[in-house]
Amino acid sequence: MSQPVPVREPTREGVLRAARKVAEILPPTPLLTAEIGGTTVWVKAESLQPIGAFKIRGAWHRLTDLSDDERARGVIGVSSGNHAQGVAWAARELGVAATIVMPRDAPRVKLDRTRALGAEIVLYDRASEDRDAVAQALVDERNATLVHAYADPWVIEGQGSTGIEIAAQMERWAGGPPTRIVTPCGGGGLTAGLALACPDAEIVPVEPAGWDDVCRSLEAGSIQAVSANPPPTACDALQTLATRPINFAVLKARCSYGVRVSEVQVAEAQRFASTRLRLVLEPGGAAALAAVLAGKVPTDGRTAIVLSGGNVDPERFA
Amino acid sequence: MSQPVPVREPTREGVLRAARKVAEILPPTPLLTAEIGGTTVWVKAESLQPIGAFKIRGAWHRLTDLSDDERARGVIGVSSGNHAQGVAWAARELGVAATIVMPRDAPRVKLDRTRALGAEIVLYDRASEDRDAVAQALVDERNATLVHAYADPWVIEGQGSTGIEIAAQMERWAGGPPTRIVTPCGGGGLTAGLALACPDAEIVPVEPAGWDDVCRSLEAGSIQAVSANPPPTACDALQTLATRPINFAVLKARCSYGVRVSEVQVAEAQRFASTRLRLVLEPGGAAALAAVLAGKVPTDGRTAIVLSGGNVDPERFA
Repeated sequence: MSQPVPVREPTREGVLRAARKVAEILPPTPLLTAEIGGTTVWVKAESLQPIGAFKIRGAWHRLTDLSDDERARGVIGVSSGNHAQGVAWAARELGVAATIVMPRDAPRVKLDRTRALGAEIVLYDRASEDRDAVAQALVDERNATLVHAYADPWVIEGQGSTGIEIAAQMERWAGGPPTRIVTPCGGGGLTAGLALACPDAEIVPVEPAGWDDVCRSLEAGSIQAVSANPPPTACDALQTLATRPINFAVLKARCSYGVRVSEVQVAEAQRFASTRLRLVLEPGGAAALAAVLAGKVPTDGRTAIVLSGGNVDPERFA
Repeated sequence: MSQPVPVREPTREGVLRAARKVAEILPPTPLLTAEIGGTTVWVKAESLQPIGAFKIRGAWHRLTDLSDDERARGVIGVSSGNHAQGVAWAARELGVAATIVMPRDAPRVKLDRTRALGAEIVLYDRASEDRDAVAQALVDERNATLVHAYADPWVIEGQGSTGIEIAAQMERWAGGPPTRIVTPCGGGGLTAGLALACPDAEIVPVEPAGWDDVCRSLEAGSIQAVSANPPPTACDALQTLATRPINFAVLKARCSYGVRVSEVQVAEAQRFASTRLRLVLEPGGAAALAAVLAGKVPTDGRTAIVLSGGNVDPERFA
C-alpha cells in the first residue's frame, strides 16, 4: 500500500510553534535527576503526560492545524496504544471524530483507555494484516485525515516540543542545555523531533534488540527494516518494522549511532525507575534509561534521558 | 521527656519565605490531574522530590536558617524515614553533620537511603523506647540542634511551601486557587503548613484508621493521643502518637474535621496511582488519595490532593 506522502518537511520553526501550542494546554512534564555511575543525569518524565506518553504532543500539533473541513471529516490513527491515546485525547478536546487502528494484542490498558477517550477502535492482526493498509482503506472510505504515528511532519514537530522543554529546564537547573539526549526509538518521530529541537545535542536513539530498524539504518546509511521474525519484546511501543524517509532524513544527518537493549536491561530500568524515581514506566518507555544504566551510552552532567511512556498492564508491571 | 520548645509560632510570612528558598534549589513538583467520580482533581506529586517526599522542604528551610555556630554543631533528626532523608539531604548540601534517630523497623529503603546521604543513624525500638528521649540525649550530648519532624516552626513553614506551589499551579491551570486541600497527616507539620499557605482553602487531614490522633483531637477540641495498642498499619510515615501544641494551634483554627482511611483503601489508592497516574506511592503517601477515592471527602473542580511520599520497599509495592 502507499505510504502517506509528507506534504512538507518538519522544521525547527515548526517544533518551536508546536512547543508554544503545547505550553498553552499542558504544563511541562518534570525533569528529574538521578545518579547513575556517579554522574547526575536528567530524566524527562513524559510518562506523566495526561495520557501517560509524549504522543499527546504530536497529536495536539497536528489536530490543531487541521482546517474546519478536515476536522469535520475526522481523523484516523494507527497505533499500538500511546499514539492512539494521544490522537483520541486531542480529538476529544477539539470535538473531532477519531478512529484508531490498533493491534489485537495491544496491552489491554491501552485499548481500554483509547476507548474511554471516545475514539472508535478498529482491530487488526499483527501477524496477518498490514496496519497501514487497514488505515488507508478507512481514510479512503471516510475522506478522513491520516495522523501517522511517526511519518508526519506535524507529529515529528509536536514530539520535538519535548526537547524545547528539556532545553529550557536544563538551562535553569543544569547550568546549560543538554549535550546529549538519549531516547526510546520506535519509528523515529520523537527522535527526529528532538534532533530538530536541540541542534547542538548528540541524539542517541535506543531500540529493543531485534527491533533495531533505526540502528541498522544508521549503520547502513539507508533505511533498513528489522530482520525477518524479530524476537518477542515487551516494548510494544517500539515494535516498528522500519523508519520512513521523512524521519530518516533527519536521523541520518544527526545520529551517529543507535543503541540496542535487551529485555532484561529494560526490566532492570523499569525497576530502577520504580524504586529510585518513583515512576511507573512501560517497557518501551524505559529503553533509553536501560541503555544508560547498562553503560551503553556515555554520560556527563548534561545528559538527558527521555522516559517516553508509562502505560503498562498492572499485573505485568508487578 | 521534655518536648522541644518552639521558639516562635509559624507564620504565613515564614511559609512565603520558605517557598522562595525552596524555589531556588528545587523545581516545583508537578501538579497532575485525575478524574475521580466524574470530577477533575489536582494531584500534587511530592513523591517526585529528590528524596521522594515533601520532607525536603522543611529540612531545607530549617537548616538554611541555622547560624554558622549551629551548623558547626550539627543537627539531630527523628524520623521513620522521610524526614530522615530530608534532613540528611539538606545537611549534605550545606556540609552539616546530621544524626537521625530511626525505628529499627523502618522500611529498609528508607534506612539505606538515609545512610547513603551521609547521615549517621541511631536505631531505637518503637515498642520499648521513646524516640524523643533518644534524640534529646543526643542533643544534650552534642549541643546539636534538634530538627523535629513536625513540632518545629521552620519545619511547618517549609512544608507549607507545598501549598504555595499548589496555589500558583492551580491559578495557572485550574482557573483559580484550591478550594480544598486533602493531605496525608502524621504529626500535622505538612497539614499546618498547608493551612498557613492557603488561608482560603478548606484543609482536610487524612490519617490511617487507629492512628487518628489529629481526627480525635479535632473532634475533642484538645490534643488526644491515639488509643492504646493501635492496629498495625502499612503507613509507617503516619504513625505518630499525638500531634503537638504548635501544630494543633493551627489545625484547630482551620480544620473542621479529619478523615480516617482503612488499609484496604490505602492499597487501592496506591494501585490507582500506579495505573492512572504512573506514580509509585508509599502507603502513607496515598492516604489523602484514598480518602477521596473512597468518597470520604467531597470534591469540586478545584480540590487538591497531596501525594506526600513514594519511598516503599519494592517487594512490598509489587
